Amino acid sequence: MSRPAESEFIAELSRIFGAHSAQLPVGIGDDAAVLPIANLQTVACADMAVEGVHFKREWSTPGQIGRKLTAANLADIYAMGAVPTYLLVTAALTDNFGITELRELAEGIKAEADKTGAIVVGGDLSSGSQLVLSITALGTLPQDRRPILRSGAQVGDQVIISGLPGKSAAGLAAHIAQRAEEFKEIVQHYKCPEVNYSIAKSFADANVSSMIDISDGLLSEAHHLSKGSGVGMRIDSLQLRELPYFSNLQDEAESLGCDIWDWVLAGGEDHVFLATTSGAIPDGAYVIGEVTAGNGIEVAGVSPRKDMGWTHFN
Amino acid sequence: MSRPAESEFIAELSRIFGAHSAQLPVGIGDDAAVLPIANLQTVACADMAVEGVHFKREWSTPGQIGRKLTAANLADIYAMGAVPTYLLVTAALTDNFGITELRELAEGIKAEADKTGAIVVGGDLSSGSQLVLSITALGTLPQDRRPILRSGAQVGDQVIISGLPGKSAAGLAAHIAQRAEEFKEIVQHYKCPEVNYSIAKSFADANVSSMIDISDGLLSEAHHLSKGSGVGMRIDSLQLRELPYFSNLQDEAESLGCDIWDWVLAGGEDHVFLATTSGAIPDGAYVIGEVTAGNGIEVAGVSPRKDMGWTHFN
Repeated sequence: MSRPAESEFIAELSRIFGAHSAQLPVGIGDDAAVLPIANLQTVACADMAVEGVHFKREWSTPGQIGRKLTAANLADIYAMGAVPTYLLVTAALTDNFGITELRELAEGIKAEADKTGAIVVGGDLSSGSQLVLSITALGTLPQDRRPILRSGAQVGDQVIISGLPGKSAAGLAAHIAQRAEEFKEIVQHYKCPEVNYSIAKSFADANVSSMIDISDGLLSEAHHLSKGSGVGMRIDSLQLRELPYFSNLQDEAESLGCDIWDWVLAGGEDHVFLATTSGAIPDGAYVIGEVTAGNGIEVAGVSPRKDMGWTHFN
Repeated sequence: MSRPAESEFIAELSRIFGAHSAQLPVGIGDDAAVLPIANLQTVACADMAVEGVHFKREWSTPGQIGRKLTAANLADIYAMGAVPTYLLVTAALTDNFGITELRELAEGIKAEADKTGAIVVGGDLSSGSQLVLSITALGTLPQDRRPILRSGAQVGDQVIISGLPGKSAAGLAAHIAQRAEEFKEIVQHYKCPEVNYSIAKSFADANVSSMIDISDGLLSEAHHLSKGSGVGMRIDSLQLRELPYFSNLQDEAESLGCDIWDWVLAGGEDHVFLATTSGAIPDGAYVIGEVTAGNGIEVAGVSPRKDMGWTHFN
């Protein structure tokens, strides 16, 4: 990237992220940011989004692309029972990605981060032949809290979920069918999911035994909890059917000629929170099954189809 | 990336980075790593390397690509007067980047990080049409230390440097001239610079007033210090001529038909450390000028040429 353009880009980013940065011992503009992390336990994760793999420029605005990847990172921090604090962002920008697009991207990142109080403290820009965005998120755990891991599920725990997964996958299906205009709500979820961060905090406050966010599909994530904890899991499709929006999604699946269970069981990127607990069910959570002895995931009431992506988990 | 390949890739990364990860409260494998950061001041930075922009696959091995970007990040942490602790790595991998290449890339990252004690604690993999690597580095400042910023240079300070910059630019020039075989030493510096991390620590221990690593060229970085500190800087080309390897570089410039001052003053990616100090000169440092009242960088003894990238700093 030529120097004048880069400095203009950086000036724009300083404008968008600079106010928060000024609250730090050292914000954006030196070799590295200096962060006041007094907590003994810092949580860190990183995620990458690549044009043509995770998003299409024709379908999503720069703001939506920024929000979506930020949400994925923030959800990972919350899934540990922690609260996000700082973000570092790197981006490879294509020739057709100008200052307007950069501003939209940065404002999308900031808008999503603002929901949680996290701030952008650094990053790097490059040119590239495809748009690539990488975000590292840091978060802190209160001193008296242990991180909520994938390994804490106990036999007899209830399996709870913060909402219906599959809307993002449904929105993608609507796009592929070139019927995005008819299915605005699910399409919006695909472009940028609305992540319920506050319920993840409720799950952590309720001391759930394990937690994960659904990035890759309910069965895939349940499998992570099952494997991590050395237990089995029985998910009840009747309970999934009672989740809000299920009947709408069923109508949409029928209209698009898709199987709703493909979306609900294997659809990713909604960042719905999945957890296990032996205690009271937090407000806003739905019970969808129980932790069992053994291993693997059983979905009661749905016949697995060999051509479903998730059947290999059965 | 298809699931079986990704899990195989992740297994390989767990093997390479897993031993260190096991020392953490939570290492690789959950939603996020949990890091024991007891220090009040954490330093964080991020850098991205893109195929065709920062490196060419024909010229550099995956191991060299990994080492080089890791070095750039570690140098930024040292340039703050801090010590690197943790790295998070994301990568977009092309179809022709298999498990062998991933192993070499990861081992390159680890080899460079091992020089400093930093460990990889997380990341993400994607597919992509060009190889893109992004690294976030975290570091800590001892409790009794202030970060060493770009804003601390004082009029009358001496300008010091840890070695001769320009070897990486020279190596690139040899590659472009298709004479890489003749110029192995500078070509090696281009592919993966040997960064003198211990001298950066000496600079910090000597309480230098400002410090930066040379990522984008000596004049560009001197300009950052000058602007950040509100001072001018006079660099003496006679003192630069006395640095080790200068006469070799001069021979190489002549042989390649290049101007050595283009390399020394404007060549980046060596990650030589540039600092200012009013105190004793740390062992291994070379004085190359002084901090002056006013603003801008003057290079005594070299006639600026309009077609040199760096003349706009005069």
